[in-house]
Amino acid sequence: MKITILTTGGTIDKTYDEHAGSLRNERTVLDTILKSLRLPDLFIRHVAVMSKDSLEMVDADRELILREVRAALPVSDAIIIVHGTDTLSKTGECIYQNIQDSTIPIILTGAMRPYEFRDSDALQNITEALFAAKVASPGIYAVMHNRLLPFPGVVKDRTSLTFRTQEEIEKISTNETKA
Amino acid sequence: MKITILTTGGTIDKTYDEHAGSLRNERTVLDTILKSLRLPDLFIRHVAVMSKDSLEMVDADRELILREVRAALPVSDAIIIVHGTDTLSKTGECIYQNIQDSTIPIILTGAMRPYEFRDSDALQNITEALFAAKVASPGIYAVMHNRLLPFPGVVKDRTSLTFRTQEEIEKISTNETKA
Amino acid sequence: MKITILTTGGTIDKTYDEHAGSLRNERTVLDTILKSLRLPDLFIRHVAVMSKDSLEMVDADRELILREVRAALPVSDAIIIVHGTDTLSKTGECIYQNIQDSTIPIILTGAMRPYEFRDSDALQNITEALFAAKVASPGIYAVMHNRLLPFPGVVKDRTSLTFRTQEEIEKISTNETKA
Amino acid sequence: MKITILTTGGTIDKTYDEHAGSLRNERTVLDTILKSLRLPDLFIRHVAVMSKDSLEMVDADRELILREVRAALPVSDAIIIVHGTDTLSKTGECIYQNIQDSTIPIILTGAMRPYEFRDSDALQNITEALFAAKVASPGIYAVMHNRLLPFPGVVKDRTSLTFRTQEEIEKISTNETKA
Repeated sequence: MKITILTTGGTIDKTYDEHAGSLRNERTVLDTILKSLRLPDLFIRHVAVMSKDSLEMVDADRELILREVRAALPVSDAIIIVHGTDTLSKTGECIYQNIQDSTIPIILTGAMRPYEFRDSDALQNITEALFAAKVASPGIYAVMHNRLLPFPGVVKDRTSLTFRTQEEIEKISTNETKA
Repeated sequence: MKITILTTGGTIDKTYDEHAGSLRNERTVLDTILKSLRLPDLFIRHVAVMSKDSLEMVDADRELILREVRAALPVSDAIIIVHGTDTLSKTGECIYQNIQDSTIPIILTGAMRPYEFRDSDALQNITEALFAAKVASPGIYAVMHNRLLPFPGVVKDRTSLTFRTQEEIEKISTNETKA
Repeated sequence: MKITILTTGGTIDKTYDEHAGSLRNERTVLDTILKSLRLPDLFIRHVAVMSKDSLEMVDADRELILREVRAALPVSDAIIIVHGTDTLSKTGECIYQNIQDSTIPIILTGAMRPYEFRDSDALQNITEALFAAKVASPGIYAVMHNRLLPFPGVVKDRTSLTFRTQEEIEKISTNETKA
Repeated sequence: MKITILTTGGTIDKTYDEHAGSLRNERTVLDTILKSLRLPDLFIRHVAVMSKDSLEMVDADRELILREVRAALPVSDAIIIVHGTDTLSKTGECIYQNIQDSTIPIILTGAMRPYEFRDSDALQNITEALFAAKVASPGIYAVMHNRLLPFPGVVKDRTSLTFRTQEEIEKISTNETKA
């Protein structure tokens, strides 16, 4: 089983600069996360595509990610894209529009809190994405917080800080209006 | 989505007794593990069935677990059994023999290193079991170390300290004989 | 043994706001740190004085800290002030100028990396400050990174990100000029 | 500042053997602990003397430790001995009897819970021992749980699982008899 992981930056990869006293996207922490997991018989190709806050991503960045996905398709049994949550949906929709006939699962994940924090959700989400890579049927997904959400129609729920399908958001909104 | 988690003890739940200076099965750490995960919209019923090293389990213990599985079936969308790894296969086969027509996934998991240790695999395995509970088709499985293994025929690989299917073990063994 | 701990904010207490995606001084993490330590027979009075990045402290803030130190003196065997590192020296000198005849140790500490980060120096520094509170002779000190540094003359070494005495800084600087 | 650390095993150094499912004294975790601390300008000589549960130490072991202490004296500004808590007092008294005129602090420390456990006191105690090595006057001490206890007369309090002076134990015992 061969999985390609493309890292692009995002909250999950923010690290603390002690001189500046601030959080930055400078490098990926993926290898540290992978070292803490037990993954027998799994071959991982890690491609560090960029290191960007996803709010700063422009069209050219999404085109680059798309190119890397296409390059990885013939040599991978699954692809995971580690991405900032703010525009994860946009990149997911972009891949969904452009790669119609994927025969493998393509999974976008990230975190609400950087991995370097003690109570980050990064380890959970990477664990889930790697598990989904093994068991999900072909398609484009967001994986986070115990959920496998198929594109199109996945959005960030900025109130409860997780991802949901468009349907779920509408249902919650309808219930709140009724109440 | 309602998941029932049955805890039975095992390595994952071993805690350190500072007076005796030794590891014991006295209580479950499941709630601590669950608190560290983000599980929106998931309803978890936790039933602490017993707190035993699985090497000390007798037939009556397995019958009790089977009774608890049957009791949980009508009220659960998935069942997770947290179990010692030494006889996890035996309990899995027992459930497989006795519950033929399950309409939900029944997942056995555990850990090679107690949760209380810094570099335990417990969090990874519980994360994976909870994800499998969401996405697996009906059946009996062992979930550990990035793998979803369907019963019958799952065994503990005592050399590499993980679980494998009977087929995989035979393949490894054949390769070693050839080499 | 009664120790008063005054928290004022600083890097050590920065917490991550998932909605804003940024670090903030909003509350103190001191109680979480203390819970992780074994401190038999120690009575701790914790006074949360303010929650500020020390670069934003004004004279009125330092006067307030001084007032709290004076209020704590008669009821404490030692005083610890948890403070941002950027102006820790300034507050230390201010206390040194104004409290000449302290009969107990008054210790300033903080951290270069917020406690919420996995590899923070916060736990080390608080552990050391609590130990110094037990064993140091009366005086005003900075405690951090295995060192007990008496005021006056303690400064932040912005190159190696630790605190040093004025003498040490001059020695390092002279050596570098020679080399 | 040069500190010699002699490791001898004990609870602090117990590691988990996944094949046997049990705790063992096989190697020291000291270097992992030291890597997590910030210790500028400190030169540490680490001598791994033995790896024993201190209940299994015999006279010859204590003689060996004594020889290593004597060998370290001329090249060290302080000596730390990492030791099992069960017979730490015995080794401390032995050093006190045999090394009367030490001109440096000699500090015994250990832990009630192995370092490999998440909520171990090992990091606290090593942090404190390293700080005491910097600030304590010449003598033989036990350092643990925020306390610097001078030999002779230090004993393990098996009820509250910490170290105390003989006097403190008698005081507690007298109070309990009165009550």
